[in-house]
Amino acid sequence: MISSVLIANRGEIALRVARACRELGIRTVAVYSTEDRESAVVSYADAAVHIGPGPARNSYLNIAALVEAARQHDVEAVHPGYGFLSEDPDFAEVCEHSDLVFIGPPAQVIANLGDKIAARRVMERAGLPLLPGSSGPVESADEAREVAERIGFPVMIKAAAGGGGRGIRIAASPAAFAESYAETTAEAGALFGDSRVYVERYVTRARHVEVQVLCDTHGNGIHLGTRDCSVQRRHQKLLEEGPAPLLPDDTVDRMGRAAVSGALAAGYVGAGTFEFLVDGSADFHFMEVNCRIQVEHPVTELVTGVDLVQQQIRIASGEALTLRQDQVNPVGVALECRINAEDPDRSFLPASGRIESFTVPGGPFVRVDTHAYPGYRMPAIYDSLLAKVIAWAPTRDQAIARMGRALQEFQAAGPGVRTTKGFLSRVLADDEFRSGAYDTGLVARLVESGAGSRQQPMTEPVKEPTTA
Amino acid sequence: MISSVLIANRGEIALRVARACRELGIRTVAVYSTEDRESAVVSYADAAVHIGPGPARNSYLNIAALVEAARQHDVEAVHPGYGFLSEDPDFAEVCEHSDLVFIGPPAQVIANLGDKIAARRVMERAGLPLLPGSSGPVESADEAREVAERIGFPVMIKAAAGGGGRGIRIAASPAAFAESYAETTAEAGALFGDSRVYVERYVTRARHVEVQVLCDTHGNGIHLGTRDCSVQRRHQKLLEEGPAPLLPDDTVDRMGRAAVSGALAAGYVGAGTFEFLVDGSADFHFMEVNCRIQVEHPVTELVTGVDLVQQQIRIASGEALTLRQDQVNPVGVALECRINAEDPDRSFLPASGRIESFTVPGGPFVRVDTHAYPGYRMPAIYDSLLAKVIAWAPTRDQAIARMGRALQEFQAAGPGVRTTKGFLSRVLADDEFRSGAYDTGLVARLVESGAGSRQQPMTEPVKEPTTA
Repeated sequence: MISSVLIANRGEIALRVARACRELGIRTVAVYSTEDRESAVVSYADAAVHIGPGPARNSYLNIAALVEAARQHDVEAVHPGYGFLSEDPDFAEVCEHSDLVFIGPPAQVIANLGDKIAARRVMERAGLPLLPGSSGPVESADEAREVAERIGFPVMIKAAAGGGGRGIRIAASPAAFAESYAETTAEAGALFGDSRVYVERYVTRARHVEVQVLCDTHGNGIHLGTRDCSVQRRHQKLLEEGPAPLLPDDTVDRMGRAAVSGALAAGYVGAGTFEFLVDGSADFHFMEVNCRIQVEHPVTELVTGVDLVQQQIRIASGEALTLRQDQVNPVGVALECRINAEDPDRSFLPASGRIESFTVPGGPFVRVDTHAYPGYRMPAIYDSLLAKVIAWAPTRDQAIARMGRALQEFQAAGPGVRTTKGFLSRVLADDEFRSGAYDTGLVARLVESGAGSRQQPMTEPVKEPTTA
Repeated sequence: MISSVLIANRGEIALRVARACRELGIRTVAVYSTEDRESAVVSYADAAVHIGPGPARNSYLNIAALVEAARQHDVEAVHPGYGFLSEDPDFAEVCEHSDLVFIGPPAQVIANLGDKIAARRVMERAGLPLLPGSSGPVESADEAREVAERIGFPVMIKAAAGGGGRGIRIAASPAAFAESYAETTAEAGALFGDSRVYVERYVTRARHVEVQVLCDTHGNGIHLGTRDCSVQRRHQKLLEEGPAPLLPDDTVDRMGRAAVSGALAAGYVGAGTFEFLVDGSADFHFMEVNCRIQVEHPVTELVTGVDLVQQQIRIASGEALTLRQDQVNPVGVALECRINAEDPDRSFLPASGRIESFTVPGGPFVRVDTHAYPGYRMPAIYDSLLAKVIAWAPTRDQAIARMGRALQEFQAAGPGVRTTKGFLSRVLADDEFRSGAYDTGLVARLVESGAGSRQQPMTEPVKEPTTA
């Protein structure tokens, strides 16, 4: 087993990795930027290295500084968390060349799957259903337009190098096509240094359903069921649940097997996520692979009992999976609420600052993953994720009730601090959400109906728990 | 379903009940003594009633004040928690006569099972194995002595009205018998107003294993597996785990069926616990029934997924159990550490005060039940339970590692505040505990070996998480 790990990330995921390591008896080295010197993981880890000033390019994206920190502290492996360098094939390659075990797939696999067009081809060959679209990058606006007319409007124009909701435009009609195409190619070039785009059918009222996979270095692969991540605002997930509601068992089974086939065909190693689009007929279509641990991984952990971060480390240590597919039997339902320090009344603008009082929910079947604590000053330069609250129950209705209770207990207050807690409570109370038959348009409809513009007294307790 | 509940208790269990009610949409009324006015449940509940000054006889044991509070707030039911009036048949009876649903067994069942001699007889008829002993109360020192010589020394002399470790003496030899007998009868008279005692074989190196049962008002009963509560100091449990380690499946099955038979024979209703003594041959013997929710109930909740407090409320509402015995399949292992505000260096004397900084563990598969918060002043007049930390994992070794991690994260500091955290860490690190083959003598052996007299650097993190 790996004996020491550099945690090349920040925030809640850095603490999550440190916890997994501590349980496995693994020495940890945290890294931190100047702005993150008060971060919980700095004191939690066995050692911590300052790697530079706040802007990510000078710290969390600074490969040389990370490798140097690993050398200084003589660590064996690097956990990249999510975001930052987690899906950067160059980082994985530098680690490999520096005798550091990269806890993730091989660099070449990350590169192949990071190219969305190449990934589409691999998955098509592995038998995964794709949305109708161009079979590769389109060479010109004219070619793109021909494809769009063949598959029918609306269509999506997507950057080959995109992902996580960036580099995507929807063209609703032939009239809007030229402008959307020009914008997407320009954005793709600017964001990713790769202006190639492809065209795919756009499905309205779609669900975003993903499958968690684990693959070891011995050719074994399993899936751990589904998560529904359709509660999104501008392609950013706000609330996830697993298993995806109202999906027929047969669909889940076929999606799971498709994900494992795709992963093995791609030579995948570690924990990965296959994102699918599910349309109104419960037909599923491969979208992309996320070559990292996901923010929403606790959902799967609570329904399967599997510690995914520990599994990543075991796999990177060369261990074979001990879990067989027939031993993975998800039980009950888990929900995750991402509580962001944002102001729902002001278009979800970041609203962070010093968190003077901070109370996290406790009690039965509630989990909290957070790097915050009373007195923590949340840096404004990073993402606004303040805490993840995860609740489990035998049934979906009970899980929703439990999450409602947990959100009521959650309190974060300080000058300038606002959170999405109230908005999430409104999602939980929404009839469409409660029915399970919701899609990626849910949040936009809620925002339009004014859900972000006021507190919802019905979901607030009469009085709040006493805090200092 | 019951629509409103008076919570006739304090501390963590009051908050636990309030959480269950909130998830079920039930209105709650908390009660509090003068010393408990800062307690978390006072602000958590929908309403709170001051019922008197600190000493329990004037507040939490004051039946008239509790019933009056229930009347004032027009509640339908009363949850007694554990301790205080939870096993007082008079309280259950007064509730019944005041049109209040008592969330627990009928008064007569509590009375029958509270008399340990009568309970022994009921269970013997129901086919449960008992320890050799007197078939009823002994009438005199001479009769007691005869029984002791027949079954062989050492023996236990136990108060008929005792329970929870009180009113028990061990006579190791004939020479010590007369004094132990006199002491036990005197203590029984003083503590319980009932000096009747009985005699039972004393098993050295015994394990304390209990079975959780649920019985509804429709004649259905199930068990939810075992908990081992052998980590005790002077009959007070410090750490519990479930399922009990190293017990053969067949033994677990027979214990479970015995507990259900006994419960149904006694007319039991609600959540209850059958305590068994398990000897070195894994033979089990009925000890007593606890007619309440137990402090250690979360252990069972985490391995079965069943919310026992919600089940109590559903049963009291007249619902039939929807869970069948074959649907109860405990998964993995859960441990519970009771973190008490006590000083292990000073014979575990209470060491409470204002808790200035308070950090509870988070992350995967860790649960915390506590009424404390930063700034909470823990009253010295009540029991010293500060928090329960519960950890789950697929295997016992993993659960121990996870609990070790969780205890390291737990921090409670303030003037005069000491906790049993370090001592519990030492238990987790102990070879005998880790083997699973421990008995009720474990803590005494650890205390003798000096485990309570120093911090254990090996189980402390190099640095602690930053707190305010």
